[in-house]
Amino acid sequence: MKKIAILCSGGDVSGMNAALKRFVEYAFDRGMQPCFVENGYEGLIDNQIHEAGYSDVAGIISIGGTKIHTSRSERFKEEAYRRKALENLRTHGIDGLVILGGDGSFKGMQKLADESGDIGFIGIPSTIDNDIAGTQYCLGVDTALNGIRVSIDAIRDTASSFGRAFVIEVMGRECGYLALVSALTSGAEMCLIPEIPYDLSVYKEDFLQQKKEGRSYFIAVVSEALKNSEEISRWFEEEIEVESRVTVLGHVQRGGIPTVHDRLMAFHFVTTGIDALLGGTKSAVVCYNNGTFVCKPIEKVAFKKYYIDEDLLKLGREFESPQHKQV
Amino acid sequence: MKKIAILCSGGDVSGMNAALKRFVEYAFDRGMQPCFVENGYEGLIDNQIHEAGYSDVAGIISIGGTKIHTSRSERFKEEAYRRKALENLRTHGIDGLVILGGDGSFKGMQKLADESGDIGFIGIPSTIDNDIAGTQYCLGVDTALNGIRVSIDAIRDTASSFGRAFVIEVMGRECGYLALVSALTSGAEMCLIPEIPYDLSVYKEDFLQQKKEGRSYFIAVVSEALKNSEEISRWFEEEIEVESRVTVLGHVQRGGIPTVHDRLMAFHFVTTGIDALLGGTKSAVVCYNNGTFVCKPIEKVAFKKYYIDEDLLKLGREFESPQHKQV
Amino acid sequence: MKKIAILCSGGDVSGMNAALKRFVEYAFDRGMQPCFVENGYEGLIDNQIHEAGYSDVAGIISIGGTKIHTSRSERFKEEAYRRKALENLRTHGIDGLVILGGDGSFKGMQKLADESGDIGFIGIPSTIDNDIAGTQYCLGVDTALNGIRVSIDAIRDTASSFGRAFVIEVMGRECGYLALVSALTSGAEMCLIPEIPYDLSVYKEDFLQQKKEGRSYFIAVVSEALKNSEEISRWFEEEIEVESRVTVLGHVQRGGIPTVHDRLMAFHFVTTGIDALLGGTKSAVVCYNNGTFVCKPIEKVAFKKYYIDEDLLKLGREFESPQHKQV
Amino acid sequence: MKKIAILCSGGDVSGMNAALKRFVEYAFDRGMQPCFVENGYEGLIDNQIHEAGYSDVAGIISIGGTKIHTSRSERFKEEAYRRKALENLRTHGIDGLVILGGDGSFKGMQKLADESGDIGFIGIPSTIDNDIAGTQYCLGVDTALNGIRVSIDAIRDTASSFGRAFVIEVMGRECGYLALVSALTSGAEMCLIPEIPYDLSVYKEDFLQQKKEGRSYFIAVVSEALKNSEEISRWFEEEIEVESRVTVLGHVQRGGIPTVHDRLMAFHFVTTGIDALLGGTKSAVVCYNNGTFVCKPIEKVAFKKYYIDEDLLKLGREFESPQHKQV
Repeated sequence: MKKIAILCSGGDVSGMNAALKRFVEYAFDRGMQPCFVENGYEGLIDNQIHEAGYSDVAGIISIGGTKIHTSRSERFKEEAYRRKALENLRTHGIDGLVILGGDGSFKGMQKLADESGDIGFIGIPSTIDNDIAGTQYCLGVDTALNGIRVSIDAIRDTASSFGRAFVIEVMGRECGYLALVSALTSGAEMCLIPEIPYDLSVYKEDFLQQKKEGRSYFIAVVSEALKNSEEISRWFEEEIEVESRVTVLGHVQRGGIPTVHDRLMAFHFVTTGIDALLGGTKSAVVCYNNGTFVCKPIEKVAFKKYYIDEDLLKLGREFESPQHKQV
Repeated sequence: MKKIAILCSGGDVSGMNAALKRFVEYAFDRGMQPCFVENGYEGLIDNQIHEAGYSDVAGIISIGGTKIHTSRSERFKEEAYRRKALENLRTHGIDGLVILGGDGSFKGMQKLADESGDIGFIGIPSTIDNDIAGTQYCLGVDTALNGIRVSIDAIRDTASSFGRAFVIEVMGRECGYLALVSALTSGAEMCLIPEIPYDLSVYKEDFLQQKKEGRSYFIAVVSEALKNSEEISRWFEEEIEVESRVTVLGHVQRGGIPTVHDRLMAFHFVTTGIDALLGGTKSAVVCYNNGTFVCKPIEKVAFKKYYIDEDLLKLGREFESPQHKQV
Repeated sequence: MKKIAILCSGGDVSGMNAALKRFVEYAFDRGMQPCFVENGYEGLIDNQIHEAGYSDVAGIISIGGTKIHTSRSERFKEEAYRRKALENLRTHGIDGLVILGGDGSFKGMQKLADESGDIGFIGIPSTIDNDIAGTQYCLGVDTALNGIRVSIDAIRDTASSFGRAFVIEVMGRECGYLALVSALTSGAEMCLIPEIPYDLSVYKEDFLQQKKEGRSYFIAVVSEALKNSEEISRWFEEEIEVESRVTVLGHVQRGGIPTVHDRLMAFHFVTTGIDALLGGTKSAVVCYNNGTFVCKPIEKVAFKKYYIDEDLLKLGREFESPQHKQV
Repeated sequence: MKKIAILCSGGDVSGMNAALKRFVEYAFDRGMQPCFVENGYEGLIDNQIHEAGYSDVAGIISIGGTKIHTSRSERFKEEAYRRKALENLRTHGIDGLVILGGDGSFKGMQKLADESGDIGFIGIPSTIDNDIAGTQYCLGVDTALNGIRVSIDAIRDTASSFGRAFVIEVMGRECGYLALVSALTSGAEMCLIPEIPYDLSVYKEDFLQQKKEGRSYFIAVVSEALKNSEEISRWFEEEIEVESRVTVLGHVQRGGIPTVHDRLMAFHFVTTGIDALLGGTKSAVVCYNNGTFVCKPIEKVAFKKYYIDEDLLKLGREFESPQHKQV
């Protein structure tokens, strides 16, 4: 291999810049010329490809988002544009491409791999939703979780001072991972996610009892998947009789200075990915499971449903138990 | 004076705990017994008053919100309940009361002072909205501003990576102070506040020109007073033709670890307030202007309209100038 | 089991409070009365033991250090005092004790277990040094790493502005884990730890070449184990001819608001530990390896040497390769 | 005026980048071409001068340090080199120069102004030490104070958990401002600065009494000016009989993400400075006093002694009063 490239696709996450830095340095270490594709698959189609050097990645390790930009591409769904993309890669003499993205991006990558033959493609799971089957961890999750934590810690200050309920809506598309971990680690009183059925009447009995014993505020963490934040807020006002507010954390969760964990995961993901390309892999996604990084064929990752770890779900189910009281 | 008390009223702010700590320590320094009134005017009516000691304020200086809780009180608008409140103060032998709150709380305080005669009352402006006439600074503002900054810095990561507009709605009730300072100090491209008339067609011309020159994202900071975040977001999609998202920062802005500035301002506010009580002041609000803390009669504070500093407004008016481009 | 207790021993770490919270709640969930031993083994000897309730752990999840205090105990090395400790546990009717600490504390625990027979003892690895054999993770490490990251990011600002070398001395006792991960994830130019032999002449050649190409500053992360920070700083001044400063990060690394990871690890460690006690374990340490929590006999943990993960060491060895240039 | 330039001199501070951004934007607003001088007076001598545009300041507002680098220059003390510097300015057609620096830099500036005649020179006080006479605020101080606060909050976690004294040495050269404000706002038990005489025997009596009443830890904030951190640490061990550690905060204090206050102060400083240049000022320093920014002749700033505000000193003197107890 002489030249390898990297691009970011779909939603950006913190840690992508650390991945770019590692990509450039490790490519040079292994005797290859690293290249950047700007602007995701859109840039791949439009030939926004250039060689990258050490100075392109200087100082970016501590910055959120991605320096080479990302995009969603409608055009990439059409074979004609993918053909253009492949041509661009070949013109630049690029033998391998690393793609940071989610499962939508990996599906596009798979088509490209099927249509290519000679070029290698490696996906690196990158989404704060942590909803990609086949890997326990996706780049960006730890930074998102710590951003949410700071927000909930701040809201708790005001909730406890003022005697209110706060319903905090957390990202995650169809997956309750972010909401569940955030609820557990911020000491929330309620956690509602799609993976765990809940019964408001159980909560009601418990909360009214707690109110009687002196509790004046409640923090509820609710997954955006349930689309019921406003409804839960009304429930607090009507059934528990406390004033209630909804806070939708929104895109604040996406950015922020990458944590050490995301920087380190970026290093391992990229190193494993480049090693796979050098080993001849033509199409795979780097997955992290139980301390190990392995490359899996894309159909084990992008076309399957993601399940939250059972130990974590078990912790989540305790939210409904009437003994679960945090004053 | 033998005994003085303190209470928090209305919305909580970061720095209230630093004020409580200073209150206890400075009261002892001046030979008085400090007391806490829990739960604002509600607690004053219900006699939730107790003596406070050093251990009550240990370790609270770095915690947001208020340890003695706050409330809004409907009952306090009725004379009968205020009479009850005065009786409670007298029963405890309290000669002076310090009230952390906004102008609504000061109006209630004024009535109490008028009806009392013997007890002294001191208000300390405490609201992140920074909308109290007569003082340039209200406790909690600096912490709120820095919380907003962290959020906007994070959103900028994702906006610049993904080529989007973000409309960020910032608190402040009828006052644009928080939004204006946040926009200036986060390098936003647009700032809309009630104090400055704006013309979207001027922005449109400028933004379309910038797009042509390569800009792919925009950050707009909008005051909640304008109630038009969704409308501005549609404007970006329709007129500027960039994808746009609204983020309502919400109650995250209220809490958080108090900054050094808020801790120090709390010290000065409380020290000035206690000195005034000892000097015989019967009713006043501690105001900060141009580096000096002075006590002003309440009618100069709570019954007037607040105006943002003219130098700051001047900076804000530059947002609309077509030269104002940040790539 | 009717009653179980918890204590903290040796250096405190962030995440201990989350462990206390989980301990209280999970004990109640499983029908037991939780107890706190204040002040480590010293408090166990002196009978500083009391029942704990929900209100004891309210709001502590986001606070560093440990609410029940910790200590190092010389007395605990003497059998007479350990006998006293056992008596105290029996008097309170305590059937199981969870100990948050390092390997020194576990050795003490083992003696207690040998001398007891009826009471169960569970250790939870808690040290920012991450130097306990048998477990890949010790409570507090992630918070320490992120604290170090913030410090190095700040120093990089000034180093790059001013054209200097900074030698940053990082904790870890005999173990280079903290230094290695910090160097990797902060983009340091040099990393010296006891586990990896180094050759300053290789660095010299590389750094002088980089200087020629325009680099003006260097960040070196050095493990405290090597005791050579001042020497390395002189080396920069004399051999590389850049002004150099040493910064010893010190105890700032120990504290700070616990990260999400440490809060979640605390939950899993404590849950596994209590389950083991309920399952009849008499003496074990909860270890985390490759995504799984298991209880190991103490001699597999406290009497062995710790080795840094080989993948990580491999990344660390790249520091000396002449290609490793970050501008 | 057609062209104005800016440079950074001496130690860097957080907020310099916000100043650069404002400089570029406001210069364009006022119809001038902004220029950057890289590397301080050294770059001025070596003609490292270039025109700056919007893209040079994009995204730098939230980054510590200075993008255009800073230096200390020995050569600048010689007239021959200053003549070279003036020639470079004239060659580029630069009519005004803004200098971010401390009083040493302003003295150099004064000489340049005396030798020039036609070019205008404006100094902006920039040092975390806050030790420049004539201005109550220097750029960078608020960020430094908040960085110190985070460190002390973290150390307090471990101090209170472990029952120790911590002597924290804070920057400030000959000025105790940073140490005093840090001690006050972090609830330290002891504060030693050159501006306030102290008597260790008073502290001793107080601390021993507090120990008797249950206090187990002490935080002492000591100015680097006193050069006695180790001595004070020994004093704690010998006289108060608590284990004690010294932490020298070091260059961590210099950098970090600029706070809102420093970003806003940077805006006002630069705006006032450019307005003065346009108004025909030939040599002055922008000073902030009691809410107002004014330009002062350099001899009122750089050749005088700085005094800490009397109100603040008064608060500082309370440290020694025996009533001052924080548990």
